[in-house]
Amino acid sequence: MREIGNLLYGQSGGPTSVINSSAYYLIKEAAKHNGIIENIYVTRHGIEGVLSDQLVKINPFDKDLEALLTTPGAAFGTNRFKIKENAEEIYSKVLEIFKKYNIRYFFYNGGNDSMDTICKLDKYFKSHEYPCYCIGIPKTIDNDLACTDHCLGFPTSAKFIINSISQVYFDDMSYQKGAVNIFEIMGRNAGWLTASSYLSILNNAPVDLIYVPERPFDMDEFLKDVKRIYEEKKHVFVAISEGIKDKDGNLLFRRNAVTDAFNHAQLGGVATLLSGIVHKELGYKVRGIEFSTLQRASTQYLSKVDIDEANKVSKFAVEMALDGESGKMVVIKRISSDPYRTKLELASLDEVGNEERVLPDSYINAKGNNIDPSYIDYVRPLIKGNINAFDDDGLIKFYHKL
Amino acid sequence: MREIGNLLYGQSGGPTSVINSSAYYLIKEAAKHNGIIENIYVTRHGIEGVLSDQLVKINPFDKDLEALLTTPGAAFGTNRFKIKENAEEIYSKVLEIFKKYNIRYFFYNGGNDSMDTICKLDKYFKSHEYPCYCIGIPKTIDNDLACTDHCLGFPTSAKFIINSISQVYFDDMSYQKGAVNIFEIMGRNAGWLTASSYLSILNNAPVDLIYVPERPFDMDEFLKDVKRIYEEKKHVFVAISEGIKDKDGNLLFRRNAVTDAFNHAQLGGVATLLSGIVHKELGYKVRGIEFSTLQRASTQYLSKVDIDEANKVSKFAVEMALDGESGKMVVIKRISSDPYRTKLELASLDEVGNEERVLPDSYINAKGNNIDPSYIDYVRPLIKGNINAFDDDGLIKFYHKL
Repeated sequence: MREIGNLLYGQSGGPTSVINSSAYYLIKEAAKHNGIIENIYVTRHGIEGVLSDQLVKINPFDKDLEALLTTPGAAFGTNRFKIKENAEEIYSKVLEIFKKYNIRYFFYNGGNDSMDTICKLDKYFKSHEYPCYCIGIPKTIDNDLACTDHCLGFPTSAKFIINSISQVYFDDMSYQKGAVNIFEIMGRNAGWLTASSYLSILNNAPVDLIYVPERPFDMDEFLKDVKRIYEEKKHVFVAISEGIKDKDGNLLFRRNAVTDAFNHAQLGGVATLLSGIVHKELGYKVRGIEFSTLQRASTQYLSKVDIDEANKVSKFAVEMALDGESGKMVVIKRISSDPYRTKLELASLDEVGNEERVLPDSYINAKGNNIDPSYIDYVRPLIKGNINAFDDDGLIKFYHKL
Repeated sequence: MREIGNLLYGQSGGPTSVINSSAYYLIKEAAKHNGIIENIYVTRHGIEGVLSDQLVKINPFDKDLEALLTTPGAAFGTNRFKIKENAEEIYSKVLEIFKKYNIRYFFYNGGNDSMDTICKLDKYFKSHEYPCYCIGIPKTIDNDLACTDHCLGFPTSAKFIINSISQVYFDDMSYQKGAVNIFEIMGRNAGWLTASSYLSILNNAPVDLIYVPERPFDMDEFLKDVKRIYEEKKHVFVAISEGIKDKDGNLLFRRNAVTDAFNHAQLGGVATLLSGIVHKELGYKVRGIEFSTLQRASTQYLSKVDIDEANKVSKFAVEMALDGESGKMVVIKRISSDPYRTKLELASLDEVGNEERVLPDSYINAKGNNIDPSYIDYVRPLIKGNINAFDDDGLIKFYHKL
């Protein structure tokens, strides 16, 4: 028998361009089951909003919700709160609030840490015999959640990276004067997004050197490669992960390291650092381009595949919870790449939470300075189809009600 | 009597997202006058391609040309070559090449330096009794050409700035934790583009502090303002021109200044510099975002108004040249902002070439740390309407034939 009660949806971790689409479709799906799901709540800033009793009731028929589809950030607020193993105080507070609002269906939208959180809560609810169906919805541009072919949000960020690099490429190639362009891309430990830069080759705008955190970075080899390519064709394009490490596993660059001199304060990332080194060592004109927040917030690069999958995943998540599933995350299984076909399944949160899925070795070239062409088949179907995020005034449609 | 002969089109200066649209429409318009204009040539890298005899004949009916509408960079190559006053060698070489190809109509697409070049060539041709009709087509995201209401390319870059800042705003506001976001925007001496950041207020994503190069920048006042706003609302958004200067007119930051230490190499811009200072002085989390090449190369932010004006300006340029006009640049005169109405005229290149049009004082607030609301009326009509730059595969359509 299905539990009659209320639903709670929360967002957690670094936002993506698609997380609010997951929210939108989940709210819309939940509204279809109004005999069982009586009220729909969202929590402000994920688990933090639960602990501070900031749950907000949502009217699923509010027309303004549609703007969630083109709004970046986490529209209901995100957080980086981690629950420790024996934090009884935290657990009991969550249970108290869940009971207060009669929350029987809980959906948490996030990455690895968020899945760990909902996994722990699910176990706590079970051990206290509080029936609440907890389902995780995968979301991270890092694409590093286990058990799933890919994570919602990654396709749109990959589409941003591929096309943005191509645009800079065509701009740079306008000049006879040579230059080195260094693109810094997000992903501390997993190189999926940085690797997607490889696909700018589909625009005839190939990246010459690509460095992912899965392989150690060797500065001497890097400088040699840059020099060789510059001498050959004068225009060099480099994509590098923010999380690149040396052979001892140390981060090449730590953000927020500030030097003491007024004029040499330093807060750039890897692109800034490497730009300085290339310019100093080789004397070339260098441009360091850090895509920064834009790579996870650019809703005018939305992939239709990504949005459609957000819809399917949310629908599936609600259906599974209503079927009595709990302690699971929705995963996407790829059946084929061409034609692109997938199916949805559930994976245990225990299985998901403990693993950071990095880029397989087969996608990295032997020298560790570029990506294998086989990676095209993986990414290409994900970026297909487009969504117009603009209104007629040329402004992106944003949801800004909370 | 109209001169029968060939047409030459060249690109010059920093590219915009719209310069290739000007090229496309000019080629299409020229093709309509095939009784007078016998062949259409483009020069590779502007005047440099003339000097090195790199003129390429274009088939105006080539289907691939359509991709020019969504291709950033200067598809035929750009240059930063400046002709000196008494460079007889250069002038005579240009005349020789023009005679060789029987160029009778010359269109040069660029900013201030490019208009200076075509102005000088026009005079040289006249003084050597070589009939060649020379017309300038305005293009610069800096928006600093004299005599015109605005320059082609500026509207699209403004649209990029407004929406990109809004996207970062929504991402940042997802967090309870405070942060300072500093956006670095192009424009060495003119603050038009930096000022356009003010319009993110239309997305309910207001920028708190805006600094243009027309006013001296005071570091102490800046830090005081950041502190005050942070204490009030924890999220601070700052837009600053790359060309910001201190009270003595010195650039706050010179790019390509490299320090000596391996780990402290420094090649970031103003955003990186200020991020370091704010973090060091106030201890806040700071993110420096340099929009870099993307702000002039993002063809998925194309303004339909910008593209339509590129069409009208190119058409007008060809018509005027055929009517015997020369030594002029096409200018856009605004009749009204709401409804948005304009007309095209010609201005003497002499008049255009000698002036860098900066942001009028009335658009800057009294304190010099923000923009006056009246600027909305100026920018708003320019960013209207959208163009889909993507093909169904999710890739931007690029022209890459030359």
